[in-house]
Amino acid sequence: MGSTQAMEQVDHVDVLIVGAGPAGLMMATWMAQCGVKTRIVDKRGTKIFNGQADGLQCRTLEIFDSFGFAHRAWIESNHMLEICFWNPDETGQIRRSGRIPDTIPGISRFQQVVLHQGRIERFFLDAIESVSPIRVERGVLPTSIDLDESLTEDSQAYPITIKLRHLSEEEATPTQVATSANGAVAQDGLFRSNLAPDDTADLLKKAELNAKANTTEVVKAKYVLGADGAHSWVRKQLGFSLEGETTDYIWGVLDIVPITDFPDIRMRCAIHSASSGSIMVIPRENKLVRLYIQMTTTENIGEASSRVDRCQITPELILKSAQKIMAPYTLTYRKLDWWTAYQIGQRVGDHFSAEERIFLAGDAVHTHSPKAGQGMNVSMQDAYNLGWKVASVVKGISNRSILKTYEQERSKIAHDLIKFDHKFSRLFSGRPAKDVMDEEGISLTEFKEAFEKGNMFASGTAVDYEASIIVAKPPEDPDEQNGMVTKSSCKTTPAVQSKQHLAANVKIGMRIPSVKVISQADARPWHFQELLRSNGTWRVVLFAGDIAIPERRREMFSLSECLAGSKSFLCRFTPPKAKYDSVIEVLTVHAGSRTDYTIFDFPEVLRPYDELDGWDYHKIFADNDSYHEGNGHLYENFGIDPRTGCVVVLRPDQYVSYVGPVDDYKSLDAFFASFMVEQIS
Amino acid sequence: MGSTQAMEQVDHVDVLIVGAGPAGLMMATWMAQCGVKTRIVDKRGTKIFNGQADGLQCRTLEIFDSFGFAHRAWIESNHMLEICFWNPDETGQIRRSGRIPDTIPGISRFQQVVLHQGRIERFFLDAIESVSPIRVERGVLPTSIDLDESLTEDSQAYPITIKLRHLSEEEATPTQVATSANGAVAQDGLFRSNLAPDDTADLLKKAELNAKANTTEVVKAKYVLGADGAHSWVRKQLGFSLEGETTDYIWGVLDIVPITDFPDIRMRCAIHSASSGSIMVIPRENKLVRLYIQMTTTENIGEASSRVDRCQITPELILKSAQKIMAPYTLTYRKLDWWTAYQIGQRVGDHFSAEERIFLAGDAVHTHSPKAGQGMNVSMQDAYNLGWKVASVVKGISNRSILKTYEQERSKIAHDLIKFDHKFSRLFSGRPAKDVMDEEGISLTEFKEAFEKGNMFASGTAVDYEASIIVAKPPEDPDEQNGMVTKSSCKTTPAVQSKQHLAANVKIGMRIPSVKVISQADARPWHFQELLRSNGTWRVVLFAGDIAIPERRREMFSLSECLAGSKSFLCRFTPPKAKYDSVIEVLTVHAGSRTDYTIFDFPEVLRPYDELDGWDYHKIFADNDSYHEGNGHLYENFGIDPRTGCVVVLRPDQYVSYVGPVDDYKSLDAFFASFMVEQIS
Repeated sequence: MGSTQAMEQVDHVDVLIVGAGPAGLMMATWMAQCGVKTRIVDKRGTKIFNGQADGLQCRTLEIFDSFGFAHRAWIESNHMLEICFWNPDETGQIRRSGRIPDTIPGISRFQQVVLHQGRIERFFLDAIESVSPIRVERGVLPTSIDLDESLTEDSQAYPITIKLRHLSEEEATPTQVATSANGAVAQDGLFRSNLAPDDTADLLKKAELNAKANTTEVVKAKYVLGADGAHSWVRKQLGFSLEGETTDYIWGVLDIVPITDFPDIRMRCAIHSASSGSIMVIPRENKLVRLYIQMTTTENIGEASSRVDRCQITPELILKSAQKIMAPYTLTYRKLDWWTAYQIGQRVGDHFSAEERIFLAGDAVHTHSPKAGQGMNVSMQDAYNLGWKVASVVKGISNRSILKTYEQERSKIAHDLIKFDHKFSRLFSGRPAKDVMDEEGISLTEFKEAFEKGNMFASGTAVDYEASIIVAKPPEDPDEQNGMVTKSSCKTTPAVQSKQHLAANVKIGMRIPSVKVISQADARPWHFQELLRSNGTWRVVLFAGDIAIPERRREMFSLSECLAGSKSFLCRFTPPKAKYDSVIEVLTVHAGSRTDYTIFDFPEVLRPYDELDGWDYHKIFADNDSYHEGNGHLYENFGIDPRTGCVVVLRPDQYVSYVGPVDDYKSLDAFFASFMVEQIS
Repeated sequence: MGSTQAMEQVDHVDVLIVGAGPAGLMMATWMAQCGVKTRIVDKRGTKIFNGQADGLQCRTLEIFDSFGFAHRAWIESNHMLEICFWNPDETGQIRRSGRIPDTIPGISRFQQVVLHQGRIERFFLDAIESVSPIRVERGVLPTSIDLDESLTEDSQAYPITIKLRHLSEEEATPTQVATSANGAVAQDGLFRSNLAPDDTADLLKKAELNAKANTTEVVKAKYVLGADGAHSWVRKQLGFSLEGETTDYIWGVLDIVPITDFPDIRMRCAIHSASSGSIMVIPRENKLVRLYIQMTTTENIGEASSRVDRCQITPELILKSAQKIMAPYTLTYRKLDWWTAYQIGQRVGDHFSAEERIFLAGDAVHTHSPKAGQGMNVSMQDAYNLGWKVASVVKGISNRSILKTYEQERSKIAHDLIKFDHKFSRLFSGRPAKDVMDEEGISLTEFKEAFEKGNMFASGTAVDYEASIIVAKPPEDPDEQNGMVTKSSCKTTPAVQSKQHLAANVKIGMRIPSVKVISQADARPWHFQELLRSNGTWRVVLFAGDIAIPERRREMFSLSECLAGSKSFLCRFTPPKAKYDSVIEVLTVHAGSRTDYTIFDFPEVLRPYDELDGWDYHKIFADNDSYHEGNGHLYENFGIDPRTGCVVVLRPDQYVSYVGPVDDYKSLDAFFASFMVEQIS
């Protein structure tokens, strides 16, 4: 670890992010939304423009929507609707043997789509720039990092010192890009034909790099995120390692505009040939198709633990393998957008943070094979889990105890991912069974079942965080953990008890599901999740029930009286001059008939008054028919009895913290008091 | 009319557009999409940033979607779902007397929304810039226009000569804007708080105006569009006039963030007070509400035909009128975004074009009161009707005969609009009836009925163009025209006969309705209209029926053989080096089961081959269940029998030209041959 020089300029920031890939940009987006002073640096000279990761889970799209840009991904991406399985028939020729939906119907308002990483980075960059002064600093490399452990618990301190070096343009241009243009070396290292119009500014900016070239500076930070990829410099500085294994299987990847008579080329396909290996087909945007192709001919290059020399693999070689697997169908191309080759392996970091001051996210703490389309999603979701917690602590809203939940929650996900990928890759790389007696081969049934089960995991909606200070559910039975490693050191315990049965399908620890509700004030239908923008705000959702029932109305007014009190948690934890809903927002969804009420029939704290803007018209909703978009039947879908109602607490990342009865104000107060900081008026 | 000077620089363009409001920008968007050499000038120094027209019809959103930006309007706008009627009760106090949906359920995939004109202009500008070099030239005023009538039928000639003067910044800044900031004079004439981030560049560009100030230039154009508003300079140069009347009724408009206990302020409301006049409430984006307020106190200013001195009206005066009408509910505000006052009048131009070379669109040919929210929509739709026709003629695809349909089609719409507005305004400005015996008053029933009927008109989906060379239906019975004036001189006659009964709900002359269909190649659901992008292309839609029926399959192959022939209309009218679908695109929707077929089961002409891109995967669709978005039941909804099928021809603007049997290739050929130009190979 390095030290600072007295003569250098020292900059102070709340958060420094190393790496501007999807994980780093997700973190920066949170910081931008929450107004946290942040810098983000990346050693590359420009963003990437093609290739690399491409699958977007339903859950990732839900998250994008909470930041306001899911529609951009939805419009530009290719939507994957169906998976087709192709297997050898009794004569050995491949035939379609089954179809399943790619996304399980009903689990999300989005379905899995494919769009290359460059566009996704563009959306993040635009989202960051539209609300904050944060800009990615490219061609900037950290050269030393130093954590003063005596200051880790001091909320005012800047315990981390990082030295940054500004690279020259030559240093900042990665060689990876230079092999991507039509399989030949591209002279300028960039792939102009693939640039969307709004990327042009980034190319121009690149010219500015050299002004600061070879200068250094010192940054003091409260928190650092290492989102710097599989070869993470931050991880290495911390002395942490990745644990896991690498296999013999080598796969090639081609992004091409295919010319083929294979009829399902625009479907996601899993093709198992009798003896030439497997292909996964991922149809993409702009007529492209990505093919993951098993390179049986190169299976034995290198040792299990060694890296394969990728120079031996060419697009021509990969194409030949593909042609063998897909025969008798023909396959060729005139347009090649990108290609690569990789060896399957799965590894997870032993630590996700140093003292909850320096964190790791994404490939820096877990790597695996790309075929499952999970890597970018899980990486972004690491940072999505972390960002609001760091912002809340930096802003003095929450105490540092919530930061422990990052490793607790994400380490388990990383292990789940590795396990999923291990199983999936084995099934995919294995030879198909010849018949039921062929025990070494993979049976079609086994494969299809794994795929169907995998789809739930792959959607990202199955994530279920364990009990903690911010997840008020009983600690998990160790027997149910399926051997997942969760360090007891990072466990925290909830201060209150939930009553899960009051909202049976709003699972504590999982993201809240979504159906449509109708705004009381203007009859507009909203997907419930659309109300839960990622802006750092906690939500207390009052499911008031059928307010035609006097008891429901009475409890609603009685809870509201507590909420409106000057010693309520709303008041105690909201800074004196901040807006009434900036820390905890109260939303109401009732099950009465919308047209029987106006917002003035509800207690004032549920539709607060602002002297410039008047009454707040957008806090109260009804579970009713809409004119044009059907009826979400929220109470039924969420498993809430309209005769009872309940209160649900949602984290800023839409995960469910607590479910309890309407008349239990005390638990709500105790829940927030267990980690929030009282604000002095 | 002026003359050119030999010394000045002469620029040649295909199209010159005068006026960069919504009508002018719609025209420019078409030209950009179709690659037509175009200039667009506006005398104002910047685009507008707030106020003015704001309602967007369903049909306008469908059109925006065909250009790729409906989602921007949909996201940013306020959605209007419900209309509430408020009327005096027996004691004279206003009470809610009824509710209806604002958009009739089922008529469109969009519903009426509200967003101010400045944002809509932004979307057009972005859409134009993303595909073409066309840029709005601001602070530019035409000073003379000259049409050489000897050249009007010469397709190579530039018969129009226009002289343009570049204004100084002072001249280019309209005084209208200077009264809009909180009702006081804004020092810089602009309302910065209301600017969206992406408008900043326009402000900066304003500084460039002075460089060309006070210079003049001469432009030679093939076609000119006067989209220069109610005081149209182009119209005056042509010597055309607006015919109609102005009434005594004066209305004030306030765009405010209301502070009120009126419970329906976020609904569209029609409030009739007993004796203080009426208010229409239009809830808007950014917490704004627009109030149209009857200024009964100033009803008698000026004579019927004279213009009222608006200086006598202030926001305070308008607010006071509003408070009287809404009593006992309170109304005040702290934020005023914009205000104006106007006198109701309706006028329509006597000509829509000079020699089908110089056209008028929008307010330049029809003006009326703004309350119905129609003006901007009908204006944009004028240009939407005209743009593809002009582009097609300029590009040598169609002959000039199609240009006559502009006046034929849009003059009728303008008269319909005036009639609608006249009735609507009278109902709205009149005193409510005290009881059934009160014949002078407006009865609630009459009003509500007019509103419901008006909603169909107001959606824009009821537009029904008459028979012409491009609308193959029987000429309309004069008795059914309700006295609408349509000059016989601009009528043209279809060359072929449709068989409307083959697709009973795909009405010839109306825009095609939309439900979801599933793409054969990738199972993705699309709204049928989403396939019909506004790019200048005609569509022949083969509703092939249930292709499990041998006769359906036989007819599909037999039609395809004709289409694929070297003398087919596809070949004759497509320029030799143009893409196969650039003039006429063939789409197929079958009623068989998607999973029983692949695209290779369909004739090649229905999924053409390109040597770079391979087969076209996006031309064949099925009327089937989707995994996540239901079933559109297209055949049922469109009134097509799957045992019969049919062929539908759609204009580039999504209006239905022709419906006929699958086995009648000859009519298709005759239809296109009646106005298209054979291309020489």
